[in-house]
Amino acid sequence: MGGSEAVNVRLEDLPLRESLRGKSPYGAPQLDVPVRLNTNENPYPPPPELVADVAAACEEAARELHRYPDRDAVALRTDLAEYLTRQTGVPLGVANLWAANGSNEILQQVLQAFGGPGRTALGFVPSYSMHPIISSGTQTDWLEMPRRADFSIDVEAAQLVLKERAPDVTFLTSPNNPTGQSIEPADLALLIEAAPGIVVVDEAYAEFSAHPSATTLLATHGHKLIVSRTMSKAFAFAGGRLGYLAAAPAVVDALQLVRLPYHLSVLTQAAARAALRHAEATLGSVALLAAERDRVVPALQAQGHTCVTSDANFVLYGRFADAPRAWRAYLEQGVLIRDVGIPGFLRVTIGTPEENDAFLAAAAAVVAQGEVA
Amino acid sequence: MGGSEAVNVRLEDLPLRESLRGKSPYGAPQLDVPVRLNTNENPYPPPPELVADVAAACEEAARELHRYPDRDAVALRTDLAEYLTRQTGVPLGVANLWAANGSNEILQQVLQAFGGPGRTALGFVPSYSMHPIISSGTQTDWLEMPRRADFSIDVEAAQLVLKERAPDVTFLTSPNNPTGQSIEPADLALLIEAAPGIVVVDEAYAEFSAHPSATTLLATHGHKLIVSRTMSKAFAFAGGRLGYLAAAPAVVDALQLVRLPYHLSVLTQAAARAALRHAEATLGSVALLAAERDRVVPALQAQGHTCVTSDANFVLYGRFADAPRAWRAYLEQGVLIRDVGIPGFLRVTIGTPEENDAFLAAAAAVVAQGEVA
Repeated sequence: MGGSEAVNVRLEDLPLRESLRGKSPYGAPQLDVPVRLNTNENPYPPPPELVADVAAACEEAARELHRYPDRDAVALRTDLAEYLTRQTGVPLGVANLWAANGSNEILQQVLQAFGGPGRTALGFVPSYSMHPIISSGTQTDWLEMPRRADFSIDVEAAQLVLKERAPDVTFLTSPNNPTGQSIEPADLALLIEAAPGIVVVDEAYAEFSAHPSATTLLATHGHKLIVSRTMSKAFAFAGGRLGYLAAAPAVVDALQLVRLPYHLSVLTQAAARAALRHAEATLGSVALLAAERDRVVPALQAQGHTCVTSDANFVLYGRFADAPRAWRAYLEQGVLIRDVGIPGFLRVTIGTPEENDAFLAAAAAVVAQGEVA
Repeated sequence: MGGSEAVNVRLEDLPLRESLRGKSPYGAPQLDVPVRLNTNENPYPPPPELVADVAAACEEAARELHRYPDRDAVALRTDLAEYLTRQTGVPLGVANLWAANGSNEILQQVLQAFGGPGRTALGFVPSYSMHPIISSGTQTDWLEMPRRADFSIDVEAAQLVLKERAPDVTFLTSPNNPTGQSIEPADLALLIEAAPGIVVVDEAYAEFSAHPSATTLLATHGHKLIVSRTMSKAFAFAGGRLGYLAAAPAVVDALQLVRLPYHLSVLTQAAARAALRHAEATLGSVALLAAERDRVVPALQAQGHTCVTSDANFVLYGRFADAPRAWRAYLEQGVLIRDVGIPGFLRVTIGTPEENDAFLAAAAAVVAQGEVA
């Protein structure tokens, strides 16, 4: 291109923070392959009536593009409260809700307010890999306690660790990504009780699970509990980037001290509201995906795979002699799944029946190649 | 509302970071009054053909809402590079450009990469009030050097201060908000030369100014120079939330280490690209606004006001015996302007001719009330 692009400045010549040196950007490979089952997206495109409604909402919003959006996104938060009240059975109002550009921004704001330098955040690993990355991005010291070999949390040991390490922020992920299990309600209550600081229950995949939402504990634990959610998964709105949380109104007040003003565009607010109007239709795909999951898991097991019990729209399975090599073997057959860095395991997102068939055929071929231990 | 909202948790009961205690959320009052001249928005709504194009772009994007967006926003950055090349005369390519949800997020990412705990950022105040707020939000120590009484920068003194304080990040705002002046090219070069660390030239209002863009200095100062821009002002896209920067490709690489993955929605990317296709029409308003500014300033002066020379779409003027009281006097007449906290001064955004007439009538009334010193 032009002259400026040719400027011979290397990343190592810039005064980058020491902690970032040598790091790579986060993100799964975005590859153009026939079957993409790597980022836990909902495989079903938005129905035509939702697309039309989003387009109409954006057209109306576009007429006021020269004006800043409602900084407090009151209408959107009201709609989210209504949806969440309906979905979880817990009465919630606009003051309990907060929204941002994806749950990543929600978590970043939580750590800016309650974490940061000199403070700690703790997670039970393996879990959502953005938890430590956002902790690092907000200069929060990251602590972790490993899960058991079956990826469940040893609740008794966890209670001791929470007491001893006293993290300022504790992440509980239910269902857990990338392993799939929900935390049992009794265990969830014990863990929240034991955590001395703020507890974020990350429910990105909650709609896929029959477990009660942690919002049921807000009435008793509002002084510490934050329930984070996303429209990316069950809502089939990954491209729209809308994360949200439910918490005590004082928590929402706290986040307003750290949010960037006007962080949610008029288009995001309008499109998310349009999508919420179609919640029932969109969430219809949840049952389809759960049924497909319950077809894929026994088929994988019949091939000789071990599957972690999943309450979400993905399955962690193995065991592979060499997971990165097996991941490439799938890719060579046009099936993109995810190597989440757990030795011996790979994660597959449940897709459409056709995608799952293609995946299972690839899985059988990879077994035939001797990749499964 | 519901039970959870009634949870009696107060902000002071939460384990908020000490530095946030007692603070208020940033933001100008969002009041519904007839004449809103307080946030430097472009008063001209997007033309119908732009609205239609944004709607069509959003409709197309909505069909893929279930998929994550292009994490690197390559198509949008390519379009921004073409626009900026055309606007500044400096050849720039996609590798020089980065985009985020408003220039606030751009600046936050810059400070996450090059500022942070143990590092410093410096600004010449009064200037854009988000610079210290975002510094605080990223735990970057904030340093400031006051401008002269006429709000210009004492370049000789500034060179000494930059050498002595050696900030990791220096903010230069041209035209400066809320005072309006551009930094002269020779001075800009001296200041960039003197700053030992990263220099962010914040050009949010550049399209209103005839001064050359700091992008002209990228070829020689790419190892330290970042030029930030926004589509909020001249582009009449405040509601769309699109900030961007031009820099050496290595700077863009650095920001990709701290950006939240998928930070820009498919709708944001599609709508911004649609708006860029109408750049010529939208930027037609710039000349109208400059002409109006050049009508408003002498009218204010004729009323006995002092006006700071402005190169932007707003004017800082006074002197008021009590600026907050004068601000309320304007509001009582249905005219919302901005008290930016500079004793004796208020800031008015240039609006449509009708809005400016209403503003000048209010200004005359406020003078008649004896508010002008």
